[in-house]
Parts: sequence; C-alpha cells; structure tokens
Amino acid sequence: MKSLSEKAARNLAAIRKKKPLIHNITNYVVMNYTANALLAMGASPVMAHASNEVEEMVSFAGALVLNIGTLTDDWIASMIKAGKKASESKTPIILDPVGSGATSLRTSAAKRIIRETRVSVIRGNASEILSLRQDDSKTKGVDSIHSVEAATGSAKILAGELESVLAVTGPTDLITDGQQVIRVSNGHPLMGYVTGTGCTATVTIGAFLSVDQNPVSATATGLAFFGLAGEVAAKNASAPGSFMIAMLDALYTITPEELLRGCKFEDCT
Amino acid sequence: MKSLSEKAARNLAAIRKKKPLIHNITNYVVMNYTANALLAMGASPVMAHASNEVEEMVSFAGALVLNIGTLTDDWIASMIKAGKKASESKTPIILDPVGSGATSLRTSAAKRIIRETRVSVIRGNASEILSLRQDDSKTKGVDSIHSVEAATGSAKILAGELESVLAVTGPTDLITDGQQVIRVSNGHPLMGYVTGTGCTATVTIGAFLSVDQNPVSATATGLAFFGLAGEVAAKNASAPGSFMIAMLDALYTITPEELLRGCKFEDCT
Amino acid sequence: MKSLSEKAARNLAAIRKKKPLIHNITNYVVMNYTANALLAMGASPVMAHASNEVEEMVSFAGALVLNIGTLTDDWIASMIKAGKKASESKTPIILDPVGSGATSLRTSAAKRIIRETRVSVIRGNASEILSLRQDDSKTKGVDSIHSVEAATGSAKILAGELESVLAVTGPTDLITDGQQVIRVSNGHPLMGYVTGTGCTATVTIGAFLSVDQNPVSATATGLAFFGLAGEVAAKNASAPGSFMIAMLDALYTITPEELLRGCKFEDCT
Repeated sequence: MKSLSEKAARNLAAIRKKKPLIHNITNYVVMNYTANALLAMGASPVMAHASNEVEEMVSFAGALVLNIGTLTDDWIASMIKAGKKASESKTPIILDPVGSGATSLRTSAAKRIIRETRVSVIRGNASEILSLRQDDSKTKGVDSIHSVEAATGSAKILAGELESVLAVTGPTDLITDGQQVIRVSNGHPLMGYVTGTGCTATVTIGAFLSVDQNPVSATATGLAFFGLAGEVAAKNASAPGSFMIAMLDALYTITPEELLRGCKFEDCT
Repeated sequence: MKSLSEKAARNLAAIRKKKPLIHNITNYVVMNYTANALLAMGASPVMAHASNEVEEMVSFAGALVLNIGTLTDDWIASMIKAGKKASESKTPIILDPVGSGATSLRTSAAKRIIRETRVSVIRGNASEILSLRQDDSKTKGVDSIHSVEAATGSAKILAGELESVLAVTGPTDLITDGQQVIRVSNGHPLMGYVTGTGCTATVTIGAFLSVDQNPVSATATGLAFFGLAGEVAAKNASAPGSFMIAMLDALYTITPEELLRGCKFEDCT
Repeated sequence: MKSLSEKAARNLAAIRKKKPLIHNITNYVVMNYTANALLAMGASPVMAHASNEVEEMVSFAGALVLNIGTLTDDWIASMIKAGKKASESKTPIILDPVGSGATSLRTSAAKRIIRETRVSVIRGNASEILSLRQDDSKTKGVDSIHSVEAATGSAKILAGELESVLAVTGPTDLITDGQQVIRVSNGHPLMGYVTGTGCTATVTIGAFLSVDQNPVSATATGLAFFGLAGEVAAKNASAPGSFMIAMLDALYTITPEELLRGCKFEDCT
C-alpha cells in the first residue's frame, strides 16, 4: 500500500496549496468544529443552507458535504437542491447519514439524498450505513450497534447497490466501492469522546475528494490523515477537552512526509 | 450528608457504565459544548429538534433536556411534543428556562412547558426561576439579578406550586422540591466566564436523572459533580479559554471516589 | 496616536466595569466562540433571533451585532426588526456582511440592512466591503480577494455613501468614516486559521461601541485589542486549536495598561 500512502501525502500537499472551498450543509452541533478542522488542514470552509443561496454557493465549491445530524424538512430540501446542482457540475458530494436508522425522518432523508443526487461517498458508523439498506436496523441514537467486521460483506453489496463508495468507520475503518476493499487502522479511542468526530472525518474526506478524483483513494487517504491526527493528539492530551484541541493542532502540523510514514492501510479486496 | 456523597459516586459510576442517551432540544450556542460535556462524563448525547422526529428520538432516551436559550415558535412546539411523549413514558424532563423573565416569548414558553409536560427538574439562575412565578421580575438578558439567598423561601413555595424540583444555581446552588432543601457549594468563579455553564450544569443533571429516580438527589449530586469539575479545572487553568477545556477534561477524569470526597453538600431542610 | 491608545485602555476598563449586554443575531458557526469572547473580555452576550422577541431583547442591549453568516429569509426579517428598534433608541449597530458578494442572498441582505437601519459600523474583509458598492465584485466564499491597500480609496468614498464607519480587516485593518482614516496593525497570521476570527473582531467592536460613542475610535480600539489578543496568544500557542483557546485567555488577561502599550495605530487621514 506504499502507493496509497504516497497519494495521501500528495493529497494533503494539494489541499494546503489549493485551499479548496468546501461547502457544508451540516448540523448545528459540529459546524464550528468542522469549520475549524477544515481551516486547520488547509481547506476553506463555508456553511450555507438557505434554499435560495445553496445552488450559487455550491458552484464555487470543490466538494459538498451533506450531514443530516440536526435535520428539519427545510434543510432536507436545501440539501437536495445543492446536491442536484453539485451533481450537474460533477462536484463530489459526501453524505454523512448521522442517526440514520434511529428515526424515520433521518433514514428517509438519507435515502432520498442518495436517490436524487450523485453521492460519491457515504461515511457513517456500521448501523447508520446498514440502515440505508433495510429498515430493521435500529440504531441507539447516533451510536453504532454493529461491528465493522460484521459489516464488511454487507457494505460491499450495498456499495454496489447504491453506486457509491461507503466508508464504515470505527476502530478500524472500512472503505469499499463494491469491488475494492481497503481498511484503515489509524485512530485513537479518545476520538469517541469528542462530539462530531465522525462528522469531522466526513469533512476531511470532503477536502480530500476536492483534490483526488478517485473516491476510494480520497476516502482512504482522508481517513488515514484524520486518524493520524488522533494519534498525534493523543501524545499531547489524555482527556477529551484537551484532546479535541490537540486534534485541531495536529491537522495543522502534520506534514505530508509524516502522513506518508504514518498511514496504516490494508488492502482487503 | 455522607449518604448523598455516596449516592453521587454511585450515580457517576452508573452513568459511565450505562452510557445513557440524553436527548437535548437546546440552544445553538451551547449544543457543541454540552454534547462534549455529556460525552466526557460518560453519557451519550443526541440533539434533535424536528417536530417530525422528536417523539421517536425521545423514546430511546434516558432523559430529555429542554433549553429555551435561542427560541422560536417552531422549537417551542417541538419541545412540547417531545415533552408530552417523555411525560407519558415517565422519562425524566429537565427544563433550563434561559432568559425567562427577559422577554415575554421566553417567559411564556417556559411556563407553557411546565404546564403541558411533566417537568422533573427546573434549573436556572435566581431571576429566571423567580420569573416562573410572576411577571414583575425582569432579568438583564440571561444574567441573574437576584441572590440565591433571597430566593430560598420563594423557591420552596414555587417548587410546591410547580410540582417540580427547582435548582437555583449561583455561587451556592439551592435545590428544593418544596420540602427538602439542599445546598451545594462546589464550583469556581471562572465558570461565570464560560458561555453555557448553566446549560452544561443542566445536561449534567439530565445525565444524573437518567440513573437516579429521586430528582432531588439526582440534581444535588449532578451539581456537585459539575461544580467539582470546575474546581479541578481551576487547578490547571486560570483564564476562561483553557478553563473551559480543562472542565471537559475534569468531567472525564474525576473518579467516583474523588467525587465522594469532593462533594460539598449542606442539608438546609 | 497616544490619545487613541489611552482611549483603548479606557474603553477596555469600561467594558470590564459595566459588563454591557451585547445582543447578537449571528451565524450558527460562531455563536459559541463569539459568546465566549465577549464573556472573556468582560461583556455580557445574548443570542436571540426570534422575530417575536428581538425588539424586546435589543431594548436591554448596549449594542446590536448583525452577522449574516448562515442566513435565511426569516433571519433577515429578524435582523431588520431588531435593527429598526435599535435605530430608534440610538443603540449602536455593527454589521458583519459575511460572504456578501459571494451570493446574491447575502449581498442583498447586507444592502437592505444598511438601507433600512442605522448601522454605525460595518466590518468585513475587502471583498465583502467592496461588494456593498457594486455587483461585479465576486468573493471566493467568505475569503477576501482584494488587498486592504487597494481598498483604501474605495473605502473612504463608500463610507461616505453608506454614512457608516467601515472597518476593512486583514493583515492591516483600515478604519474610515469617509474623512478620518486609521490603520491598525495588531494581529497574527494564525488568526486566519480559526473560524469566525472576523466575526469575533466584530463582536469586540460591538462591545467597544457600547462604551464609546465615537464609532471611529470604538472600532479602532476594539480592533487593536482583538489583534493584541492574537499576538499574546501566539506567544503561548503555535497551531490553530491551542491558539483559539489562547485567544480567549488573552481577551481575559490583557489589562488596560498592556493594551495602552500594545496598540499599533497609524493615522492615515
């Protein structure tokens, strides 16, 4: 997987050079943190959700992040509108189906976004991802109840059905487009004690998608970078408050060379 | 008050073991910080406010937090809807009447929530709490203009009238159900320089309510834990930015044994 | 510019003494950080946006901050309503036209607020400010594409046209009412890696406006204080996460005397 690590380094360098604009329609809880994460890694975030400006805003963007974490019908409509515009211009879309499976509003919104727009990547925990297939998978709030391992086979099939790259994240992340399967084992347990860690992984993938046209490698390299930031942060912090700040610092300080050496990929195709 | 300190320790251990889901319909300003506080102490936060999902979401929850800090009519309707559902299933509700008394929208919303749902605990500063009784108590924005001391008598009467436990927080916190009166003197002055400290005290009580059926002891022990986190944080930080991060760290690192030794209760019944 | 530095020190001391209430109708991304910044410097923030409470809330306020960062039509209506009420009572209004020029919704909202309310100060980057004049100035998201230098002449003319003090911020900040021109060179490059730095500069000016009736000196001294906080923070932090926390600490710890010595003003009238 040396070539994928090299791509990770190139992608990070490209983000820092190009400062791509990432348009986020996302939940209230993580808006500040994900904007700070994007800035720290070198990208340029914008948050805009009004139905009468999202098409205009997404036309400037290198990627569109759709996150259903604090959803209402108005926001779904704006996500669909922005997503259709992005689909037309082939701007990559990444969907974070936060809490899909927990309520029918969220499950149906996630499915509708997938149906009506051209989603390149979907990132969620195992139960969120599995909820996109069937309605018998109930999540406990936004937490996962399925293991990444159990999800591998289902994810491959589902990726093919949904025609989208799936990123099932957890202690080990699984990335598949239905054929290729890559695992990323970067990360640290303290990431589970910071709200919006998953959402921040998603915007990181968004930034990588804006500089890498291959959604599998963009997703894998983005998750390796994000996980490595967790590892670096854990060297400087041992509790969630200082850890979440150290994460932002690490997204800024990790060099492409450090990322090249730090990626933990496994090809399981 | 040794038995109450022991209960505090047991409650904290129970939260860390059960990881209760706390459903928050709360204000935009504090969503991120209160979610992080709940995660740090061991609970599992979810923020959801859409009228077409709050009933479903609250059905998974161990407690419901209603906070009127950045209110509109839509949000009031969702709070009432979630509150009624929680009342039916006897899921404890805690209300934070942020700014009640400052504007009539907030005062009337707080009163309506109390009237139409089964609120277990109301936490506010003295002027917010007093505003629930009468309209002549104007607050200066969201700050308190009455002392905790002046409020004791009124709080006892009001708790009886509202059939709810009242937590009047300030340098010393007062908890009463109309009969029992407990004071908690944990805390630190720097807490007043972090936005949403009161709101975070409220979600802490929410987590304690989810593991302790007695709303008086749940509230007193939750406030002691939260105040102790402020004391611990102040040992590591002397200005508001680093203090608010150290607070999150302390919510994670304080052990049940440290809480047992650190509680500052006074029974004033 | 010694007298302006002395005014800076007096203004900061006045904020710490009077704890003015600053009413913010602002974007979701920065609500928490700007509230914490206001608290840290000694002011008292309130966030309230409901159309049926903004008039009541602003009647208590020492200044009104209008920030169009995550805008919808409802919010524009509330901003206009609050702004008209503030105009009647001569409560100073400061406008942050976030992303004006990037989308027509934002440009037209900013222009409408300026037209229908009595805005004392407008703070933005060069392209946002220039967008208030003409429609051919497109911004890349919320980032500036024009230099402060290029904007000086235009800003003077525009300030006269809009009858408002303009603060064009960047590496060097430019403040003008159409006649006086002051430059402030406090600040640090890491401020560009924290989301809402501009928005936080705006609320700082809001706090200074609440204690200083001269909008030119209030703006210049507020920006010097805010920039100095960045300089102090950079002594303690070298990456964006720890830097943004150190900024909050510095807003709290900087004394009027330190501000008096630290201001970097230049009169370019």
